Amino acid sequence: DIVAAMGAPNTNSPLSGKHLMITAGPTREAIDPVRYLSNHSSGKMGYALAQAALALGAKVTLVSGPVTLSAPRGCQLIKVSSAQQMQDAVMQHVQACDVFIGCAAVADFRVAEQAEQKLKKQQDEDEMILRLVKNPDILASVAALENPPFTLGFAAETQNVADYAKGKLARKRLNMIAANDVSDHKIGFNSEHNALTLFWNGGELALPVNDKLTLAHQLLGVVAQQLEK
Amino acid sequence: DIVAAMGAPNTNSPLSGKHLMITAGPTREAIDPVRYLSNHSSGKMGYALAQAALALGAKVTLVSGPVTLSAPRGCQLIKVSSAQQMQDAVMQHVQACDVFIGCAAVADFRVAEQAEQKLKKQQDEDEMILRLVKNPDILASVAALENPPFTLGFAAETQNVADYAKGKLARKRLNMIAANDVSDHKIGFNSEHNALTLFWNGGELALPVNDKLTLAHQLLGVVAQQLEK
Repeated sequence: DIVAAMGAPNTNSPLSGKHLMITAGPTREAIDPVRYLSNHSSGKMGYALAQAALALGAKVTLVSGPVTLSAPRGCQLIKVSSAQQMQDAVMQHVQACDVFIGCAAVADFRVAEQAEQKLKKQQDEDEMILRLVKNPDILASVAALENPPFTLGFAAETQNVADYAKGKLARKRLNMIAANDVSDHKIGFNSEHNALTLFWNGGELALPVNDKLTLAHQLLGVVAQQLEK
Repeated sequence: DIVAAMGAPNTNSPLSGKHLMITAGPTREAIDPVRYLSNHSSGKMGYALAQAALALGAKVTLVSGPVTLSAPRGCQLIKVSSAQQMQDAVMQHVQACDVFIGCAAVADFRVAEQAEQKLKKQQDEDEMILRLVKNPDILASVAALENPPFTLGFAAETQNVADYAKGKLARKRLNMIAANDVSDHKIGFNSEHNALTLFWNGGELALPVNDKLTLAHQLLGVVAQQLEK
């Protein structure tokens, strides 16, 4: 049982002495004081990674969007709501980290002009146009630092999953990317299970369907191997 | 203690023999398989109303958007996600009801064209336009039935609360409206407390800040009085 075997902090662990920053959950982009844009990320994969990293002896900073999960004991939790807040929190603390794992489902776009009062539905208006502008790209910002941490991204896709993931790995200059197919309702968002394919420069590894905590241990094992290179 | 006093079902209760339908929580309007529009409604007020109505002897159908609450024992729970699904569930079952309380924060708009695959961020695109169209008006639909139940709406506003509420009462031909000011962070969305002002034809009543279950009992007391007229 890989989880039980790795359950106790172990100073011989490849992650002992390492500081990991993990982002998790969705972001919420306010439209007005009442309405927002978000996505179906539950945060379960990111929180499982935090729990596994702690069990593997790492120091963990968890930057989390709004979720209903409890943070694992022993991690530093930074709660955020919007992508901009997540970017600010990450950039403020990531310089001290050896590994950055961007597991959050960060909204690509935010509303261009956030309303200070609740928008009123007009009787004669059957349509509303919402103008969105691009959010900061947190993963790319971290990977572009002068001395970047080992940077791992996630690609949650519904089609051409491997192609999109490999494109994102190269374009954002990541060290590794974990791809998952969120069109499969048995795994992914809000499920207790997931399946990942890891891609890095010169390698790939499929991690078949498993509970998210076991997958987190497997993924961090591969990260630890790459850190040793 | 009003809650304790009213805690046990009571056949002498003015709501015994009555069937209430209560909507609760937010709705989620899908943009694509991953992203959605929603709002900050926690469902707590609607679930408190369901609990209070059951304690007052009523039969309760609770039509709920996605929330993290457990439905009170003894109510019929119908789970929905979008405004259209909520409208369908309400219209299918409301004819049998004596009272309809629209406590859900139903999205006024949904995305005009829902994407079947996750929308991809284009590298050269700094902006995205989201075209929204009006959702069905569930409250107005219920109130416009040939033999409508006693219909109570909620108005969650951030400014001119009383004016908006009274306008909504008249325009949608409701029997009663409960107004609350969601700009006050001590009450309203996701808070355990709320404060309501009830308006009906020829009357109004302010229910000052209290926990949501106590407010629910007070509100249902006023509804019961109105039903007797």
